[in-house]
Amino acid sequence: MTVAERLTELGITLPEPVRPVANYVRHVQTGNLLFISGTGPTKAAPTGKVGTDLTVEQGYDVAREVGLQIIATVQDALGDLDRVARVVKVLGMVNCAPDFRDQPKVINGCSDLMVEVFGDAGRHTRSAVGFVALPDQIAVEIEATFEVR
Amino acid sequence: MTVAERLTELGITLPEPVRPVANYVRHVQTGNLLFISGTGPTKAAPTGKVGTDLTVEQGYDVAREVGLQIIATVQDALGDLDRVARVVKVLGMVNCAPDFRDQPKVINGCSDLMVEVFGDAGRHTRSAVGFVALPDQIAVEIEATFEVR
Amino acid sequence: MTVAERLTELGITLPEPVRPVANYVRHVQTGNLLFISGTGPTKAAPTGKVGTDLTVEQGYDVAREVGLQIIATVQDALGDLDRVARVVKVLGMVNCAPDFRDQPKVINGCSDLMVEVFGDAGRHTRSAVGFVALPDQIAVEIEATFEVR
Repeated sequence: MTVAERLTELGITLPEPVRPVANYVRHVQTGNLLFISGTGPTKAAPTGKVGTDLTVEQGYDVAREVGLQIIATVQDALGDLDRVARVVKVLGMVNCAPDFRDQPKVINGCSDLMVEVFGDAGRHTRSAVGFVALPDQIAVEIEATFEVR
Repeated sequence: MTVAERLTELGITLPEPVRPVANYVRHVQTGNLLFISGTGPTKAAPTGKVGTDLTVEQGYDVAREVGLQIIATVQDALGDLDRVARVVKVLGMVNCAPDFRDQPKVINGCSDLMVEVFGDAGRHTRSAVGFVALPDQIAVEIEATFEVR
Repeated sequence: MTVAERLTELGITLPEPVRPVANYVRHVQTGNLLFISGTGPTKAAPTGKVGTDLTVEQGYDVAREVGLQIIATVQDALGDLDRVARVVKVLGMVNCAPDFRDQPKVINGCSDLMVEVFGDAGRHTRSAVGFVALPDQIAVEIEATFEVR
């Protein structure tokens, strides 16, 4: 089954990838590594600090939405998601208060999606940690690295 | 035009690269990737939290100064800035309070510099996010990865 | 001297590597690069914010313990630590309050260990910075990248 077929089976329609407005780009490939910029959710997602303004479950949903945005960017970069050999690394950034403990449960929203979509090739290294503030007070931002064939 | 000529045209003189004092180094190359350690500004730069102790504009200037320091380190590593094939990735770390929203406007100080100096090869992936505290309360620290030819 | 012999000489016994419970893995190799997930200490280590709940010296000890855990993971991934060509990059994440300044002194616990164990090949690029909160309020989390031969 191709990744595109798996997306259809999962009932997933990829969003339109966001476009950066400053002097940076959404993706750079060097050798077999594809780097994706730090990615947030759409403007419709709830904002603020997870554990304070959002529940962990809401944070999970935002992380999943960010994951979809990342996959849409990879599709945009490669043209064909079957060129993904491996999800290598995820840096999961959670906007939270000093006493928050559940960053991994939030970033699971992205990690679970990667494995649903790419199977074993979706299993990645990651850090899921707390940031004092993210741009425009988005709740979750995620940066990712892929191996490309 | 070489990168050295472009620096002259822009009126930029690179600073002396900083030297680490602990068991780490300023740069490591592996294959075609050159990794640069997290880099701060000189001691003369204003310190503290951007949005609280510094304005966004002051933060932009600090990020530009950090960018110059990174380019000086790349020059030190490669001997010739024309060996830079691409600025691959920037992690822009902004020292800020929990309600700060403008990390991207701060890190633009580095991103704009990279495009001024390296042209299209200076366009990179990046994350620009908020940290609760940086070493010695510097306002901005930036880590970068380059592709080398 | 092999790395295994050096570990014996240093009186270091590697801990059992931790196993992740979610949809991510402890290590991924792509080409000559080995990526290690964000790694914390064992449950016995003191938790909380360095500079508030732990002294800098206690933080150093936690960072060293995290470093041992990372080396145990590399051993698990490669089977033989002599396959490490270089410690490329360390992201040292310190759980701390907004006024903390000594993140580098904390992460030296890991950096010093890498040089003790791998010699000059242990000298790496790094960032040592402050995070508002880490999972389960661990005091230190470290992510690392190795070059493999």
